[in-house]
Amino acid sequence: MPKYLAEVLGTFAIIFCGTGAIIINQETGGTVTHVGIAITFGLVVTSMIYALGNISGAHFNPAVSIAFAVARKFPAREVLPYIISQVVGAVLASATLRFLFPANVLLGATMPKGSEMQSFVLEFILTYFQMLVVMNVAHGSKEQGMFAGLAIGGVVLLEAMFAGPICGASMNPVRSLAPALVSGHLEHVWLYVVAPTAGAIGAVFTWRYLKGSAPAEVA
Amino acid sequence: MPKYLAEVLGTFAIIFCGTGAIIINQETGGTVTHVGIAITFGLVVTSMIYALGNISGAHFNPAVSIAFAVARKFPAREVLPYIISQVVGAVLASATLRFLFPANVLLGATMPKGSEMQSFVLEFILTYFQMLVVMNVAHGSKEQGMFAGLAIGGVVLLEAMFAGPICGASMNPVRSLAPALVSGHLEHVWLYVVAPTAGAIGAVFTWRYLKGSAPAEVA
Amino acid sequence: MPKYLAEVLGTFAIIFCGTGAIIINQETGGTVTHVGIAITFGLVVTSMIYALGNISGAHFNPAVSIAFAVARKFPAREVLPYIISQVVGAVLASATLRFLFPANVLLGATMPKGSEMQSFVLEFILTYFQMLVVMNVAHGSKEQGMFAGLAIGGVVLLEAMFAGPICGASMNPVRSLAPALVSGHLEHVWLYVVAPTAGAIGAVFTWRYLKGSAPAEVA
Amino acid sequence: MPKYLAEVLGTFAIIFCGTGAIIINQETGGTVTHVGIAITFGLVVTSMIYALGNISGAHFNPAVSIAFAVARKFPAREVLPYIISQVVGAVLASATLRFLFPANVLLGATMPKGSEMQSFVLEFILTYFQMLVVMNVAHGSKEQGMFAGLAIGGVVLLEAMFAGPICGASMNPVRSLAPALVSGHLEHVWLYVVAPTAGAIGAVFTWRYLKGSAPAEVA
Repeated sequence: MPKYLAEVLGTFAIIFCGTGAIIINQETGGTVTHVGIAITFGLVVTSMIYALGNISGAHFNPAVSIAFAVARKFPAREVLPYIISQVVGAVLASATLRFLFPANVLLGATMPKGSEMQSFVLEFILTYFQMLVVMNVAHGSKEQGMFAGLAIGGVVLLEAMFAGPICGASMNPVRSLAPALVSGHLEHVWLYVVAPTAGAIGAVFTWRYLKGSAPAEVA
Repeated sequence: MPKYLAEVLGTFAIIFCGTGAIIINQETGGTVTHVGIAITFGLVVTSMIYALGNISGAHFNPAVSIAFAVARKFPAREVLPYIISQVVGAVLASATLRFLFPANVLLGATMPKGSEMQSFVLEFILTYFQMLVVMNVAHGSKEQGMFAGLAIGGVVLLEAMFAGPICGASMNPVRSLAPALVSGHLEHVWLYVVAPTAGAIGAVFTWRYLKGSAPAEVA
Repeated sequence: MPKYLAEVLGTFAIIFCGTGAIIINQETGGTVTHVGIAITFGLVVTSMIYALGNISGAHFNPAVSIAFAVARKFPAREVLPYIISQVVGAVLASATLRFLFPANVLLGATMPKGSEMQSFVLEFILTYFQMLVVMNVAHGSKEQGMFAGLAIGGVVLLEAMFAGPICGASMNPVRSLAPALVSGHLEHVWLYVVAPTAGAIGAVFTWRYLKGSAPAEVA
Repeated sequence: MPKYLAEVLGTFAIIFCGTGAIIINQETGGTVTHVGIAITFGLVVTSMIYALGNISGAHFNPAVSIAFAVARKFPAREVLPYIISQVVGAVLASATLRFLFPANVLLGATMPKGSEMQSFVLEFILTYFQMLVVMNVAHGSKEQGMFAGLAIGGVVLLEAMFAGPICGASMNPVRSLAPALVSGHLEHVWLYVVAPTAGAIGAVFTWRYLKGSAPAEVA
């Protein structure tokens, strides 16, 4: 069905371009730069919302699908097929990158630079604020249209920019899982599955409280 | 009440991401770069306007709340609770950053690179033009919607970009106060409280004169 | 006729500014930087959509004109005149750059850094996702208005950012052909003609399948 | 009258922030970077369109005022007062920068890196395409609203990015005149007065021809 293919394609593009930027930066002696990597991650999210948001809602992220289900804006029975589609897209992207850059060791996998605790706290906070933006600009569980693309791509860009050098700024379990699986470096993957999911769910509860007394919709 | 929590959360995010970018840049040997720090400050303001603007009006800045009150667009009795919320959010952000990066000395506090007078003039001019943009794109005292987020984040980004290396480009008393308090470096804080507040109030009076004969609203 | 002149002018601007950024970066010891080159390519596409999109539809790219014709959104009899206009604009741009920078050897021609196969796969994927965005935000075969300019310029920017150091991130046959012709370095041009065209056509078939069950238009 | 004050203020902001970025970059050992300077120039134009566009039309540039008059979209009797306002704002900005940075020699004045002819051709082409965007997104002679700010700031940003290292990317007679006057380096100013004005007027004639058969307005 088209919506699952849209999740496969969009997640493929985000992992292919985003972790591709990290890999190409390594393979070419730092040409892309950290600033270029962060810009790539933000704008590929924006672009895939514009290409596919009206088909699948442009989740591309299990933490987002789960959080929308917790918020009762997305049917629970769709969570598993969405996550499977996202895993398929992400693993295909990492496999394609391994084919193109066979000498690269980590394939853009996220690794805590300091302690796991430090990166856990960062990933929780990053995904919490990202999901707060998503909740406020999505139409139900659909990220679509010019505004959602700009807002959500913008928050991804800034978080990758400032936090990437410490925790990798994953904010997305499959963005960490796929390069870890394909490169065989699964050592810290648990934290990139748990922390973003917890952060996104935390944002749903905050948002509900905030919306209790607030006017309905942002323009 | 939701609007005060929104001011706490939004100010937390701005100080956490913005001064976090400065701290992580120091802790990782310049990875984020000055350009990355400026982009982080601009986009986190944009993002928090999108996440919270329709709840609290997204001031996140005592100079902005005071200037809106001077412009009679914001009730005077709300100024103190807004400022308290902003201080709470900012101090929580600096405390969290100290917990995550205990070895960092300044926690992103703003320091004049040259004379205090030079930085005072810069901060006055920066906040003056920022508030001129805010007055023209806000709905009453509310910064909300796609346009306000782009416009206000854009002016923060450019001012942090060019003036940051001299004065720190604070444009916001609590953005300077919180890291100064938590790091114990209060030596120049007075100028970052006085100059932005004076600049924002100056913009209100200019704007009133400009609007005397101008058509009502920007599209 | 105005629409052909618009294709000449817009393609001229894209090649002049984009490959001009590469040339000026080389001539001034890396001042523009790779990040600056990618930003130039993305924003000149945005700007020319805003200047000329309502006149010609702002294709500026034979792969896009051919793919729109395959999608039956653009009359087949217009494809050849559009491509001729694009070639004229691009060659004029490269000739002007040669006149301004006579010592430059490659004039910004795209060269695979590794194997031809590696760059072929990259160019196919890059143009595939770019055309997926174009199909979803264009009005028929016309790229025009604020949204199309942001979306299409954004995807060009990010793809130039991450993939430029390996394959040159052409995504456009005339963007590679013109500097190759004027500089006399035609050795890899075939791949930059074939891969983007195949990728753009591939996106048309994907898009048709995706749209089979999806609601009509993005906001 | 408010519209003249708006031209003074907006031109002040553009010269203060833009050439201020060049000066602060020099005074702090390259901290701002060339990329940061180009971003500053683009976004300050965007910001001043948002702050003042509905008051004066946000010309801030004699070449733009003259070209709008040639296009019969702006009354000829307003050209001189607009230019005087722009000169006043620009000279005030350069004087303030001299006061803040007394040791700086050039105050951000534009100088051809190579021959005058090379920079003349570049400035003509840069301003030609900038004015083509302006003509298509302005309402009559007014640059205002979200779209015009994004489009015009974007074209300034990209042109400053790629062409700045060769010709300074002035595109505006007063942006070159003011630092040249205040710093006493008037040697190449003539070319930055003549080339942008000629380029902007050239765009008006192209635009008229293009619009002869085109539909009326971009969305």
